[in-house]
Amino acid sequence: MAYHLLQRDRPGAEQLARALTEALTRVRHCAMCNNYTEDEICALCRSPRRDRSLLCVVETPADLGMVEQTAAYSGMYFVLMGRLSPLDGVGPRDIGLEKLLARATAGEVAEVVLATNFTNEGEATAHYVAEMLRGRSVRVSRIARGVPLGGELEYVDAGTLSQALLDRRGM
Amino acid sequence: MAYHLLQRDRPGAEQLARALTEALTRVRHCAMCNNYTEDEICALCRSPRRDRSLLCVVETPADLGMVEQTAAYSGMYFVLMGRLSPLDGVGPRDIGLEKLLARATAGEVAEVVLATNFTNEGEATAHYVAEMLRGRSVRVSRIARGVPLGGELEYVDAGTLSQALLDRRGM
Repeated sequence: MAYHLLQRDRPGAEQLARALTEALTRVRHCAMCNNYTEDEICALCRSPRRDRSLLCVVETPADLGMVEQTAAYSGMYFVLMGRLSPLDGVGPRDIGLEKLLARATAGEVAEVVLATNFTNEGEATAHYVAEMLRGRSVRVSRIARGVPLGGELEYVDAGTLSQALLDRRGM
Repeated sequence: MAYHLLQRDRPGAEQLARALTEALTRVRHCAMCNNYTEDEICALCRSPRRDRSLLCVVETPADLGMVEQTAAYSGMYFVLMGRLSPLDGVGPRDIGLEKLLARATAGEVAEVVLATNFTNEGEATAHYVAEMLRGRSVRVSRIARGVPLGGELEYVDAGTLSQALLDRRGM
């Protein structure tokens, strides 16, 4: 891309440079949910139509986008902008867990929904947050693990099926 | 395969014919779980180490094999040998639901775990069985739907994520 811009599209390069500089100046983290925004508080956090008693914790802005796409959730969010990963030197302070703790225990939130990934790091992060909130007056829940929609038992891995059996629910 | 046997392996063809005839004579359905067996009652149903208060309903012998592989389940099974599929002319009688009803309400079973697939037919079958057992003195549960192990939110379909949010569980 660098060669293309330098050789064939110098005005484009200038435009890109300006756009990047502008983004660096204007885009920052929302004071409430930590997502990217150009305002102090992002549009989603300002919306009067969201349920303020629910706080969904996700790893990245892309994950927030996925949850929004389901249209099954109308609460608030907190974006960690990462996940606990000791091997990469990412600890609790690097993913804003103090800010999350303050937000979750401020009184408005009744339930924290942990929607981190089901990878090792995502699971570790979920357990860390659950431990952090233990004993506080806030419910902590985790999105369900199990067989995906349209899934056939024959093609599901043993770990997922085992979890689906353990987490079975009454009908 | 037919051409190969006729042209190059006539003794093999004879052997295969004998094996098939023998299988047709000897292999039948277990009187308890409906799985294939050479005995009146299959080895799994005869085992004294299985928990007889749990009855897992699966669509096929292959699904039974998958559940066994998880080593997370030690109860009994009922194999439907199919699923409800009105478009293909498969109704409740074709998948032995009367036999399942008799087995589930005989007194030994405390919980029926529905482990049919999460396809349309599998879900319809699970709901039909749940309705059939409603009001009887037996608990009915369904294996969990959700995000598979190792799954990342970004790559999961909206339907599965939506279900995982609705089915979230306390930590």
